[in-house]
Amino acid sequence: MKEVLKPEVLALIEDLVNANHILYHQQVVDAFGHVSVRHPFRADRFLMARNLAPIQVESDDILEFDLDGTAVNAQGRRLYLERFIHGSIYRQRPDVNAVVHSHSPSVVPFTISRSSKLRPVCHMSGFLGAGVPLFEIRKFSGNASDLLVSNDELGRALANTLGTSDAVLMRGHGSTVVAPSLKLAVYRAVYAEVNAKIQSQAQALGDIEYLTNEEAKACMVNTEGQVERPWEFWKAAARKSNSESAAT
Amino acid sequence: MKEVLKPEVLALIEDLVNANHILYHQQVVDAFGHVSVRHPFRADRFLMARNLAPIQVESDDILEFDLDGTAVNAQGRRLYLERFIHGSIYRQRPDVNAVVHSHSPSVVPFTISRSSKLRPVCHMSGFLGAGVPLFEIRKFSGNASDLLVSNDELGRALANTLGTSDAVLMRGHGSTVVAPSLKLAVYRAVYAEVNAKIQSQAQALGDIEYLTNEEAKACMVNTEGQVERPWEFWKAAARKSNSESAAT
Amino acid sequence: MKEVLKPEVLALIEDLVNANHILYHQQVVDAFGHVSVRHPFRADRFLMARNLAPIQVESDDILEFDLDGTAVNAQGRRLYLERFIHGSIYRQRPDVNAVVHSHSPSVVPFTISRSSKLRPVCHMSGFLGAGVPLFEIRKFSGNASDLLVSNDELGRALANTLGTSDAVLMRGHGSTVVAPSLKLAVYRAVYAEVNAKIQSQAQALGDIEYLTNEEAKACMVNTEGQVERPWEFWKAAARKSNSESAAT
Amino acid sequence: MKEVLKPEVLALIEDLVNANHILYHQQVVDAFGHVSVRHPFRADRFLMARNLAPIQVESDDILEFDLDGTAVNAQGRRLYLERFIHGSIYRQRPDVNAVVHSHSPSVVPFTISRSSKLRPVCHMSGFLGAGVPLFEIRKFSGNASDLLVSNDELGRALANTLGTSDAVLMRGHGSTVVAPSLKLAVYRAVYAEVNAKIQSQAQALGDIEYLTNEEAKACMVNTEGQVERPWEFWKAAARKSNSESAAT
Repeated sequence: MKEVLKPEVLALIEDLVNANHILYHQQVVDAFGHVSVRHPFRADRFLMARNLAPIQVESDDILEFDLDGTAVNAQGRRLYLERFIHGSIYRQRPDVNAVVHSHSPSVVPFTISRSSKLRPVCHMSGFLGAGVPLFEIRKFSGNASDLLVSNDELGRALANTLGTSDAVLMRGHGSTVVAPSLKLAVYRAVYAEVNAKIQSQAQALGDIEYLTNEEAKACMVNTEGQVERPWEFWKAAARKSNSESAAT
Repeated sequence: MKEVLKPEVLALIEDLVNANHILYHQQVVDAFGHVSVRHPFRADRFLMARNLAPIQVESDDILEFDLDGTAVNAQGRRLYLERFIHGSIYRQRPDVNAVVHSHSPSVVPFTISRSSKLRPVCHMSGFLGAGVPLFEIRKFSGNASDLLVSNDELGRALANTLGTSDAVLMRGHGSTVVAPSLKLAVYRAVYAEVNAKIQSQAQALGDIEYLTNEEAKACMVNTEGQVERPWEFWKAAARKSNSESAAT
Repeated sequence: MKEVLKPEVLALIEDLVNANHILYHQQVVDAFGHVSVRHPFRADRFLMARNLAPIQVESDDILEFDLDGTAVNAQGRRLYLERFIHGSIYRQRPDVNAVVHSHSPSVVPFTISRSSKLRPVCHMSGFLGAGVPLFEIRKFSGNASDLLVSNDELGRALANTLGTSDAVLMRGHGSTVVAPSLKLAVYRAVYAEVNAKIQSQAQALGDIEYLTNEEAKACMVNTEGQVERPWEFWKAAARKSNSESAAT
Repeated sequence: MKEVLKPEVLALIEDLVNANHILYHQQVVDAFGHVSVRHPFRADRFLMARNLAPIQVESDDILEFDLDGTAVNAQGRRLYLERFIHGSIYRQRPDVNAVVHSHSPSVVPFTISRSSKLRPVCHMSGFLGAGVPLFEIRKFSGNASDLLVSNDELGRALANTLGTSDAVLMRGHGSTVVAPSLKLAVYRAVYAEVNAKIQSQAQALGDIEYLTNEEAKACMVNTEGQVERPWEFWKAAARKSNSESAAT
């Protein structure tokens, strides 16, 4: 990104690098998974790293993409195969400004369960109250696909399945969460995982008292108004971890 | 806290900072959760951090509160939304001198289970023998609340539900434990989580042999008489972790 | 221990310090739990730390005990309440030269399960094949005890329950494992925990194919002949962790 | 290995050392388990460490073996008891160039389950689609064996059970995975563990939607084409961990 970037874009790139590191440190992503943010001045563009494990992403690795998934400044660098997830959602959901795709470990079991549905069980995950649809890629790619959202058509199908929800499960694969801001997308990715873990353990104990729809909405408003606290906490923790690495 | 503080208060503030760090290090709290201690010279006051992730709390972040949740020296700093949990309990329970509120991960499933109740299963958690009531906030806030104990009235309702027990579950949210001293409150917060984890795993194995009420009482007296050992151990572990951070 | 100690005793004390650190690092003990070794020149004595979290034990903390649990050189230092576990077993089992008592997290659920018994499921834990009796302290202390083996009489009852086995479960409390050498006792404490975790998870998957008694015996001979490998590995890992601490 | 080694062999030895460290860091191996690679110029030889915990392996510890398990340059150093696993598979499977044997914790429960079979549940583990046979050593060693593949005859029996699959479970013991390259063998060992964990958790939630055979094949081709990303990520993480150790 040799071009001269505005301060707002530079600040957002710094946040995006932090988001990558936080998602790794909070065990939402590992070698795989990616996070993007809509360009602050061009609604038809988004920012995301080149094909790299999130913990290894630095500002020079951030590229700019069209909504059809074309990188405008890749200069030959390898791209995430599933970048179409991001562009398709930004196209269909003007309210969404950030997207996280991950294989977080407690969520994946819900993507393959025929019996159990992921639902909000605690006040931190009210955003799940808008419903968590399941994207069954077989409906679009048939019974022999590689399960990846690797072209714009599949991206559109995923965005359609997401609809007006804030999270969508992808069968045998992972999930994608969306939010009006980068910090909230990170927050939701972390708490989708937390909710899944709590729900799994509670199901093992017997019947569950879920949040009502109205509780979910009220919880979302209130807890997400506090997003700066976990963001600062997670950023400090990720920086600590990275510094220990850099010191060696 | 620019005022001149008595040595006893300064020592307690240092313990409270340690308690914050220990609770994070022992995985009872993360970005959320808080711990307070009753003021040693004014039974109508308590000490607690400003709105901050516990691991980030230092002595300058400790504020003094009235029992109605008003900070007497906040100087504009943001407060925990649920500080009313603490004041209400100190008001109703003169025997209580410290309170921990958390979302510790193995306890939350019990707060949403219609089938299973948290009960003492091992000698380290005899304090659960006085019963672990469930605070169903719907009874007080209706079906559309944000689940937070965010005013004095809800604080009183929670304190009433707690009654004479030493722990109360909060549906879809977390738990609150109380104790006659700060060190014991930390101990009980850690072992409420340990007990929940053991009980969950034991339920998966079949029927459980719980402690009798008398065993719970005897265990509480004996193991809690040893609280200095885990406190010193946890403090050293938390300091080690923090120093590694500071070194970078 | 200001007296002049023979080199063999000094070497054993060093091993015992390492054993304490390993058991913490391998998550068998935390603030609680203890490990002892029979004195190499006096079969009626054993070595064990004063009342301290295992990770904090250094050579100066190692005391010498009679088999009735009296410390011969405590000089006023506080002792483990359950030191009687060790002396009673050394008295009854001349083949045993080391004892580990712990509350390791996957074993405790088996101590309170009315339905499931801990049995050897893999080649690393053949030592469980001699049977894992359950010590129900209610039979000896009644329904109102603190569950602790806090006197010689209870120690004898525990040793009787252990019988000729190499591990005994203690209801609502933890377990004790024994071995002919310190390294093997550490090994068995680690693998009792590993076996419990595997067995719990396998029970959730359905019926289990356990080791036959003959397989358990053959596995014990063979894998325990390799004890130097895990010992050196665990010791290096524990030292690494401690050095990181000391550097700060 | 005092002989002069070709650059390709030196590079492969460096990769093999990294593979050892990665498998430890990713929690596939601990004190036990081993990884080998076929010699790049002699199809009848393979490279593997001497008897050592994987995290402790350095290049000087890498030995060269015949396919019958004889080390050609051991110089008295102790060998893995189960080296016959590797040679037998290289002999029978010319397409295989790397082998990992481990006791990874989520896989072992499937080796002892009479009810549940390990099957591919997500796109990262398509390689399991070729089937995951169970090696029941009792068929070959009887009811009193030590469960170890400790001679060439048992190695051949294991290789026969593996057949054309890429992973084989070993009852009460662990698993062995194979691949056309060292990096892919490490990848498969990690994702066999990940798949087992997800499948276990999903079974607890109810019925599972597995990958179709065709999906498994397509997933294998696609995700394994990206093996450099996790390899570089895992290598960096393992190096970071080792450097922290070396600094002390």
